[in-house]
Amino acid sequence: MSPRTPDASRRSETSRRAIYAAALGLVAESGYAKTTIEGIAARAGVGKQTIYRWWGSKADVLLEAFLDLGEQQVGEGTLQGTTGMTGGALDGPQGIPDTGDLSADLKLVLRATVDNLLDPRFDAPARALTAEGLVDEKLGRTVVAKLLEPNFELYVERLRSAREAGQLRPEIDPRIALELFVAPVAQRWLQRTGELTHTYTDTLVDYALHGIAPR
Amino acid sequence: MSPRTPDASRRSETSRRAIYAAALGLVAESGYAKTTIEGIAARAGVGKQTIYRWWGSKADVLLEAFLDLGEQQVGEGTLQGTTGMTGGALDGPQGIPDTGDLSADLKLVLRATVDNLLDPRFDAPARALTAEGLVDEKLGRTVVAKLLEPNFELYVERLRSAREAGQLRPEIDPRIALELFVAPVAQRWLQRTGELTHTYTDTLVDYALHGIAPR
Repeated sequence: MSPRTPDASRRSETSRRAIYAAALGLVAESGYAKTTIEGIAARAGVGKQTIYRWWGSKADVLLEAFLDLGEQQVGEGTLQGTTGMTGGALDGPQGIPDTGDLSADLKLVLRATVDNLLDPRFDAPARALTAEGLVDEKLGRTVVAKLLEPNFELYVERLRSAREAGQLRPEIDPRIALELFVAPVAQRWLQRTGELTHTYTDTLVDYALHGIAPR
Repeated sequence: MSPRTPDASRRSETSRRAIYAAALGLVAESGYAKTTIEGIAARAGVGKQTIYRWWGSKADVLLEAFLDLGEQQVGEGTLQGTTGMTGGALDGPQGIPDTGDLSADLKLVLRATVDNLLDPRFDAPARALTAEGLVDEKLGRTVVAKLLEPNFELYVERLRSAREAGQLRPEIDPRIALELFVAPVAQRWLQRTGELTHTYTDTLVDYALHGIAPR
């Protein structure tokens, strides 16, 4: 039987999902440093070589596991959100909605982001990967490039479109503007500096759009 | 000779500083988990009992070491800043300046904060402590309560004063408003998501005060 037959492909898909689940589970329980390819293979019930055939390192497995988790959440009909922290993990491919109402679109996405961040499947492993990225600069830069920046880019696109529609001041830099609501959510989530509620994210959007000084 | 004579007091002060330096150095090099009271004592050239006489745990030593580092920076004439991330560490006791010009005061403090965050004496140990706090909830909450919240409180006070002076919209919640500029700085510093410059922090203050939507 060739490896390209449907049966083999189904087996591959099952193994891949088992490997992602093992990787996310281990990193959540033991931290990034103590997670090994051997450990992931053992928990997933596959040979180490199966993992090495598809991925070059545990970082690669984990990054793809987060991307896959995001696709699953979208598939389940979870509202699409962006995390701003470990990011693209939780995005659908379709970007941020553009109904023409910037405030409504941002509020919708940030509410969904909060729901996704608090999803226990995501929280512990994302926290562990982010923590390691703070002290391991190479890993941190990979996490940012693969998971965060693609998310930021979605906000940049939505804000650019808003600027063209006259809903953003012309001199605003979208790459900086997005941080006004994305970074506070990330900090409350990661450092537990405050409650993460829909009321909170709605307030952030209002403050960022209209400013805190009197008009 | 009683322990309260000046000589003994000077010796204590010297030991205390050596212990702080050892604790910050070790946590920067080996991470929080691998730092031990024994290791700190050995590097500081003191007995383990000397440390246990003054502090209950390595977390206690480190938190005080950060507070002491902040006082040193202020003593050196480093402009006072607040980190918003590992926090009070870098504040002087005098709070945020209140010249009556909210924008100027916030810009001054945030510029100083950037300088302090990039200080190599602070960066690596603060990063290590913060990383551990992301995955160790108890430690994380202690770091927030002892180092971050006191800083946030300084912003809350300055923003309240601005609100009374009519420089903030009356409905603004200062505890949320401060996150518009503090959290983006923290994220760029911790996750290396972008350059930390004075131009950047000035821009954040302008966006937060005046909003990104047209007026």
